[in-house]
Amino acid sequence: MRADEDNLYREQLPNVGSLIRDGGRKLCRPSTVTNKFPILTWLPRYRLEYIMQDFIAGFTVGLTTIPQAIAYGVVAGLEPQYGLYSAFMGCFTYIVFGSCKDVTIATTAIMALMVNQYATISPDYAVLVCFLAGCTVLLLGLLNMGVLVRFISIPVITGFTMAAATTIGSAQINNIVGLTSPSNDLLPAWKNFFTHLTSLRVWDALLGVSSLVFLLLMTRVKDIKWGNRIFWKYLGLSRNALAVIFGTFLAYILSRDGHQPFRVTGNITAGVPPFRLPPFSTTVDGEYVSFGEMLSTVGASLGSIPLISILEIVAISKAFSKGKIVDASQEMVALGMCNIMGSFVLSMPVTGSFTRTAVNNASGVKTPLGGAVTGALVLMALAFLTQTFYFIPKCTLAAIIIAAMISLVELHKIKDMWKSKKKDLFPFVVTVITCMFWSLEYGILCGIAANMVYILYSSARPHVDIKLEKINGHEVSVVDVKQKLDYASAEYLKEKVVRFLNHQNGETQLVVIKGEEINSIDYTVAMNIVSMKGDLEALNCAMICWNWNIASAGVVCRLNNDLRPIFKFDLSLEEVVAGHFDSPSNTASTVTIEA
Amino acid sequence: MRADEDNLYREQLPNVGSLIRDGGRKLCRPSTVTNKFPILTWLPRYRLEYIMQDFIAGFTVGLTTIPQAIAYGVVAGLEPQYGLYSAFMGCFTYIVFGSCKDVTIATTAIMALMVNQYATISPDYAVLVCFLAGCTVLLLGLLNMGVLVRFISIPVITGFTMAAATTIGSAQINNIVGLTSPSNDLLPAWKNFFTHLTSLRVWDALLGVSSLVFLLLMTRVKDIKWGNRIFWKYLGLSRNALAVIFGTFLAYILSRDGHQPFRVTGNITAGVPPFRLPPFSTTVDGEYVSFGEMLSTVGASLGSIPLISILEIVAISKAFSKGKIVDASQEMVALGMCNIMGSFVLSMPVTGSFTRTAVNNASGVKTPLGGAVTGALVLMALAFLTQTFYFIPKCTLAAIIIAAMISLVELHKIKDMWKSKKKDLFPFVVTVITCMFWSLEYGILCGIAANMVYILYSSARPHVDIKLEKINGHEVSVVDVKQKLDYASAEYLKEKVVRFLNHQNGETQLVVIKGEEINSIDYTVAMNIVSMKGDLEALNCAMICWNWNIASAGVVCRLNNDLRPIFKFDLSLEEVVAGHFDSPSNTASTVTIEA
Repeated sequence: MRADEDNLYREQLPNVGSLIRDGGRKLCRPSTVTNKFPILTWLPRYRLEYIMQDFIAGFTVGLTTIPQAIAYGVVAGLEPQYGLYSAFMGCFTYIVFGSCKDVTIATTAIMALMVNQYATISPDYAVLVCFLAGCTVLLLGLLNMGVLVRFISIPVITGFTMAAATTIGSAQINNIVGLTSPSNDLLPAWKNFFTHLTSLRVWDALLGVSSLVFLLLMTRVKDIKWGNRIFWKYLGLSRNALAVIFGTFLAYILSRDGHQPFRVTGNITAGVPPFRLPPFSTTVDGEYVSFGEMLSTVGASLGSIPLISILEIVAISKAFSKGKIVDASQEMVALGMCNIMGSFVLSMPVTGSFTRTAVNNASGVKTPLGGAVTGALVLMALAFLTQTFYFIPKCTLAAIIIAAMISLVELHKIKDMWKSKKKDLFPFVVTVITCMFWSLEYGILCGIAANMVYILYSSARPHVDIKLEKINGHEVSVVDVKQKLDYASAEYLKEKVVRFLNHQNGETQLVVIKGEEINSIDYTVAMNIVSMKGDLEALNCAMICWNWNIASAGVVCRLNNDLRPIFKFDLSLEEVVAGHFDSPSNTASTVTIEA
Repeated sequence: MRADEDNLYREQLPNVGSLIRDGGRKLCRPSTVTNKFPILTWLPRYRLEYIMQDFIAGFTVGLTTIPQAIAYGVVAGLEPQYGLYSAFMGCFTYIVFGSCKDVTIATTAIMALMVNQYATISPDYAVLVCFLAGCTVLLLGLLNMGVLVRFISIPVITGFTMAAATTIGSAQINNIVGLTSPSNDLLPAWKNFFTHLTSLRVWDALLGVSSLVFLLLMTRVKDIKWGNRIFWKYLGLSRNALAVIFGTFLAYILSRDGHQPFRVTGNITAGVPPFRLPPFSTTVDGEYVSFGEMLSTVGASLGSIPLISILEIVAISKAFSKGKIVDASQEMVALGMCNIMGSFVLSMPVTGSFTRTAVNNASGVKTPLGGAVTGALVLMALAFLTQTFYFIPKCTLAAIIIAAMISLVELHKIKDMWKSKKKDLFPFVVTVITCMFWSLEYGILCGIAANMVYILYSSARPHVDIKLEKINGHEVSVVDVKQKLDYASAEYLKEKVVRFLNHQNGETQLVVIKGEEINSIDYTVAMNIVSMKGDLEALNCAMICWNWNIASAGVVCRLNNDLRPIFKFDLSLEEVVAGHFDSPSNTASTVTIEA
């Protein structure tokens, strides 16, 4: 049974991948359409018995999504209904384009935080960014740029998530005790908390802190061995909904003459948002703001929001795809479409949410169709429940956010890095510090750059072995290049050979460079090979390139045709050496290098 | 004889290199001092017969240096004597710290162009940048950051040089015909040339253009086969001096009552500059400018000037060191000291000059001592010749600059790249366009970044072979990782294996990952190995890591101790497979992975 269900996905996905990874050469195959629309693969095979599972999962996710959406609307600095606007279109769109059954699309705390800076000016900015980010992600997906996220290593992802979660959670530390904070930044939020702690609102603090304790305890109830396991599991999964229902109920019955003991969410505009074009211009304080001005306001977000949203969805889909291949590019196409479609219903940028995806998975979802139930639930909430949402206490929302953020701070990974490979702590620390104290946008870039230093450094230090061998009675220096060469390593090879010869004091008269492992070389390497020949001549030493691949030899020979004779292909090392010292004329290779 | 002379350098340099490259482990060796002061190695072996050679070479270089220095002072937007101030201290300092006999230190056209933007405000800025750039270069050299220049590939260097030479030459196109240009930038210079062409000064244009033709022709006289070859060679090498002497003489005899037919250089402050601290504050238009304000004015130059100056000197010293190893870090130490010392005598930033180094080499210099003659010549010019310099026509200087720039534009390299490896044209074109139309500082960074994409991309696509092999009657998937793995390639390996298994439809029950070529892995790779085991289990397939090195295996096992049994070291592949299927208990490796 389980194997069958897996197959439903397994058979579909390799096609997607191989198509795109083969550089589009198979683009004419009929499977292209089904690859870009995974629904065409799984829907025809949909079985009736999946419906119940998908419904339960979708419903459970909905119960998590609605309170989170309202909370993240607040994190973004928007009215709460914008969180709900962002929570349904993604679910529907992902059914068509998504390739991972568990992934659930809506706005996340990090997305909300990243739009906050201009969403507070006007919601139109958030919607426009949603549209533009969607277009960017879609384009990158179609161009198969999924490979980009490979350059974000786990230490950098961990550091970024930790820093973002700490920042978001810290901003809510004021709301949970009924204080208002002037800033969403880390240090100002804590400063405000400590300077205004004496003026906290007791009722808010009580409800907020107890909600937080409740939520944290409820993450553990799934492990209860007593009674019906299923009951405990779904109780745990519904914890956010329970906290909100309880808080709202309390606020409602304790309210008198419009006075509540708690700071509540307040009026939420009722109704489903209209379906219309995203705003390409807006009005702020009565003044017209053009598209160009809006663009310059959102600035760097147009790069970072697509990047982070891709990162989130790819990381999540990979985490929930044991034994299957996640086609990052198709996930990007799906995410791009979700954002583009979302921007038509006033959504802010959305991506895969780890919490809700985990709930979806734990609830045993079978296909992406579960998302339809979640989406429908959010739409119904918008249509019928907004008056109830008026009474949701802000401190309850803060507790929900903080509980979610605590689960994102994975301190054990720091220990793992320390144990496993200490040097990986460097990009981690760079990411955490720059994200926390500078900005999330630039912080992750700093982390990526810091980590790239390792790749670049190692490319400048290729693995090259040089040995003095006695072949046919001649001392020959055999250079074994174990790795591909590029411009950064070009000098290194030359230096290493010349240094080796300098230490030999002229005993070696022939250097053989074995090139089996050299896949390809560039112009700079070729230039260095040419100049190395000159260097070796100055040291009274000849040079032979043995068993290079034809392509690499071609790069050198097209640069300097005189070097053609130094490439030997179809002879053994002994023959090459014997030929060089004894009968040079006999040792021409029969392999021809293209001109 | 020739071999002996080479040895003088060859024996000295390997020590320098090995010391520094071995990560400073040998820092306690007595050779440390001689490594940092190459003069201690070559001076004791100095032979009397070198003196004449060094003198002739130093004198010839001096004849080139003096007119170039005056011209580059003008390029920098400074009074001409500043060019001369920049032309002697480097020569003296390099004698002590330099390790390449040919390299000649003074300001270059590119350095002059790069300081122009703030040197025009006050010369103090140029001197301060010289000091700060010197400190940066010295520090980078002491930290052995010479490896950095390896990331500047030949296409990027070529593009940068070409763009800089075009910009500098274009700015002089106005001066050569007696026009004044309001800007040193490429397009404004040409626009000014064409819009004011009708008002050119005939005498200037005549002298300028004929000087240029003379200079270009004189580059060829060394090839004349007729008569005394030595005569033609030195005639060619003295061409700049000849042009200046002729132009100055002409301006002098044609001048009447203070009126000259040509625009001349004008008053040059006579005398050797005072030796004093570089200016850490200055006065502009009577207003005090603090160190901090000066820093913010010079801005990005503090990064780009050290980078470019290192690039120039390293490229030049490598070009003139056939069969020897250039220790980039020691060259950086030397360059840093030259700039620091220079800043005490009002020098602008200096570096190795390709033209003058080539003259030095062609004149047969034997040791860096030739620089003393050049330096002394410049000092004498400052002391006694400044009144003569008054009459140097500006158009002659412009001709000298343009002739030098033309030699830097190596169009044949574009053809080489096209023939040899077309993809290298991409970083070249990026560099040329951004340098010409944006700025030299950012342009070279764009070129470097564009080229790094190749390294990064290939690190994300490691060479991995997967084959289905029949071993002891079992179908085994053997994964051969041909290359080191890092975080960018971690996913790729996992994906490739899972994809391969998906295509096998469950026939394979064992995957063996050969790790001989995997030097080291990072945390992200280790995490992927752990999750790959889970993925393979979901596909009913076991995983064995065979012959990994102990360090890499340790990274994985420290992360998840349960993976310890999958690492097999001291057994043949047959034994491993047999052990897995037949008697798992017998196949424990005896090699212990450190905890």
